[in-house]
Amino acid sequence: MDDIATATLAPGLVERFAGIVGPANALVGEDLIAAYMIEPRDLWRGRGKLVLRPGSTAEVAAIMRLATETRTVIVPQGGNTGLVGGQSARGEAEVVLSLSRLDRIREVDPIGRVIVAEAGVVLARAQEAASEAGFLFPLSLGSEGSCQIGGNLSSNAGGTAVIAYGNARELCLGLEAVLPSGEVVSGLRRLRKDNRGYDWKNLLIGSEGTLGIITAAVLKLFPKPAGREVAYVGVASPDAALDLLGRAQDRAGSQLTGFEFMARVAMEFTLRHTAGARDPLATAHPWYVLMEISSQRSDEDARATMEDILGPALEAGIVEDAAIAQSLSDAKEFWRLREEMSWAQKPEGGSIKHDVAVPVARVPEFLAAADAAVLQAIPGARIVAFGHLGDGNIHYNISQPVGADKAAFLGRWREINDLVHAIVLALDGTFSAEHGIGQLKRDELARVKQGPEIELMRALKGVFDPYRILNPGKVV
Amino acid sequence: MDDIATATLAPGLVERFAGIVGPANALVGEDLIAAYMIEPRDLWRGRGKLVLRPGSTAEVAAIMRLATETRTVIVPQGGNTGLVGGQSARGEAEVVLSLSRLDRIREVDPIGRVIVAEAGVVLARAQEAASEAGFLFPLSLGSEGSCQIGGNLSSNAGGTAVIAYGNARELCLGLEAVLPSGEVVSGLRRLRKDNRGYDWKNLLIGSEGTLGIITAAVLKLFPKPAGREVAYVGVASPDAALDLLGRAQDRAGSQLTGFEFMARVAMEFTLRHTAGARDPLATAHPWYVLMEISSQRSDEDARATMEDILGPALEAGIVEDAAIAQSLSDAKEFWRLREEMSWAQKPEGGSIKHDVAVPVARVPEFLAAADAAVLQAIPGARIVAFGHLGDGNIHYNISQPVGADKAAFLGRWREINDLVHAIVLALDGTFSAEHGIGQLKRDELARVKQGPEIELMRALKGVFDPYRILNPGKVV
Repeated sequence: MDDIATATLAPGLVERFAGIVGPANALVGEDLIAAYMIEPRDLWRGRGKLVLRPGSTAEVAAIMRLATETRTVIVPQGGNTGLVGGQSARGEAEVVLSLSRLDRIREVDPIGRVIVAEAGVVLARAQEAASEAGFLFPLSLGSEGSCQIGGNLSSNAGGTAVIAYGNARELCLGLEAVLPSGEVVSGLRRLRKDNRGYDWKNLLIGSEGTLGIITAAVLKLFPKPAGREVAYVGVASPDAALDLLGRAQDRAGSQLTGFEFMARVAMEFTLRHTAGARDPLATAHPWYVLMEISSQRSDEDARATMEDILGPALEAGIVEDAAIAQSLSDAKEFWRLREEMSWAQKPEGGSIKHDVAVPVARVPEFLAAADAAVLQAIPGARIVAFGHLGDGNIHYNISQPVGADKAAFLGRWREINDLVHAIVLALDGTFSAEHGIGQLKRDELARVKQGPEIELMRALKGVFDPYRILNPGKVV
Repeated sequence: MDDIATATLAPGLVERFAGIVGPANALVGEDLIAAYMIEPRDLWRGRGKLVLRPGSTAEVAAIMRLATETRTVIVPQGGNTGLVGGQSARGEAEVVLSLSRLDRIREVDPIGRVIVAEAGVVLARAQEAASEAGFLFPLSLGSEGSCQIGGNLSSNAGGTAVIAYGNARELCLGLEAVLPSGEVVSGLRRLRKDNRGYDWKNLLIGSEGTLGIITAAVLKLFPKPAGREVAYVGVASPDAALDLLGRAQDRAGSQLTGFEFMARVAMEFTLRHTAGARDPLATAHPWYVLMEISSQRSDEDARATMEDILGPALEAGIVEDAAIAQSLSDAKEFWRLREEMSWAQKPEGGSIKHDVAVPVARVPEFLAAADAAVLQAIPGARIVAFGHLGDGNIHYNISQPVGADKAAFLGRWREINDLVHAIVLALDGTFSAEHGIGQLKRDELARVKQGPEIELMRALKGVFDPYRILNPGKVV
């Protein structure tokens, strides 16, 4: 793929692929393929000319056999919501393979507590199917209305419930996948324990569609909590938030189902730009924690646990003030403040974003060092730090100074990324906590991973995809 | 390795390896190496002549570099408690590399809630270190007094706490490992989220020392429960036990920290052969469940949850009778009955063992089919089924008929294995739930895994270990 920009598909290929999926599912023409080329945030613009929409695992396999035979590059795509360009075709010779038509929920097993979902099932639909059967499928993301299970697993999606239930990886018991060769590996097992050989399942999960195409998965279900309680808490510092986290973990264990934290400026932006939003607390605080407790017993039980955590923390001066949701609508409103935080940065001008994580204990250290470095580089920059404290995962976003030139500010994206990522790496952190590598961070990955580790990744890629036809130019 | 039985080490090799670890840690002579050749149950007898005891990761790396140069086979070994022969040297030319001297706990991080342990740390010591810091490290096995963290991870160990905390795999955040080439991959990350490239960590975990040698790991810690309650429950059938499991999961969620089940005959053997053991229930029942509830609040809270589960289940006729532990010593005694179950089979004569799992919902179906097949093959056989119902994992052991010839009975091991495993596979189960493949089940793995999957495993082995010097003849 030396000439990604200029290469074109070989003559007759469109017809051969159309022969597999049927003409109606081999999309050509700008209008038809637009939704597969332009993702919602328009950060990545795909440059392909052909989109295939197979309707079965067998069709996916046939596509890959033909792709292997003809050395055609295939780019698998789910809901097209990825933030790092992993799902985007880089040129005309790259064919997008959309999993959207593999959208069946094959089974809900209420005794084994699993759901068997095809790759194209939209996350919200998987959540609904679980709920209708009386269970919880806890994976929850901003894009859950359009992102798909296959993409969630390919990118090892995170979100707000990771603290209690784990990443997408932890929620998956088994996979069915098509390898670049067109062979199907059937591992749709619903076993809680299975120690038979090498764990290829976890290699595919998080590989962003570069090792194989996930076509279906067995996902774990959890009992629905019988009660929930949510609180907004004002604290003086990241250290205080960390102290509160420890207390909440000790007291609530895995019933601590949410622990988001955010800087005052993130809260200000949200209050300013979200219709009907109001501050749950009477006065401003430097930092906030949004804490959720679940109970298998009742709302009252969740509330008692919440009070057991907040009471002593207030007394000890860890917590400055706290508001406990008095109703379901309060709770929804509290969560809405957090959910709108990403969008609320837009009206404030340019924003340079980071998806970093550091060891939980080092979050305060990271924030102090990164704030100092960023403000030295760009005086007046507004640091919109928020995220999942229990995971050490911070969306460390920098909004431009008031009145600054947006284009000039965004022109410093790479410089500021380098600055922040250097601090992250010095603290043994990661510059991709939950969004993945894709095209965006591929060079950076090669730069910072030590020799043996990146060589190992390249060798693994070679085993699965010797002809480099599956999503090349992504990850490694 | 065509002549495993007759090959010997090349002249001068012992001295060269001794040059790396020091003469005192290059053991030769039957007495010195006996503990590394004969494992506690004497199922596997190692045939090596040299045991190396490196004292650091750098020494492990130097050993592997020399092994690569000289094409010497290295067999990594932890506490030598494995049940499938993964840790045993198959001939004189195979050198055992014991991780026992890498026994430092490098760090306990109470805020990040992790412990950094070297491979040779004995599991019980890791549990103690966690406990001293106020936390729980939940991995718990029969051999915890001698098995080591490196072996636990290499074999993806299970045990009784998997239902709440997961297998060894789920407890590990990061790894340091030495590859067959002698290169060190340093992934001792303590990140709760890190989506940078392919997950080689999970490939090494469960690979039984055939892809790399784990030298250290970052392990998750959990809050210590503030309270616990344990009950013995008599039920009429596996279906009833499964119904109770569902109720317990709904009501207790992840506070359900134990759900073992066992057939009456397993209980009888234990009562007969365990000093001081007594039946917690007044009358006999066909099946038993040992259920444990933990609470972050108090013993009373755990008890209330237990009663909330058992009360309605008794009323609904799911539970025949139940005894709730009235004291800590009761609770210990209840667990002792379960823990002695493995040993209590010995005085009853020969025992043909299985380590199987099926989808949780299919456990009753498995038991009915397997019992019928086994009793048809060996009338009078006593079926000692017990295990971890929440994981679908059954130690399905067959004790010889009373008065039968032990040797003749044990001579049918393979025949009975084949019979039981065929039923397991027909139910989409596994013939290795938690003990691994090692030497014992290698041929069976190759036989039953479909083409692409076993080929993928072999290709992965080739990437890590092109010269087949690391634990060959195991797994694939």
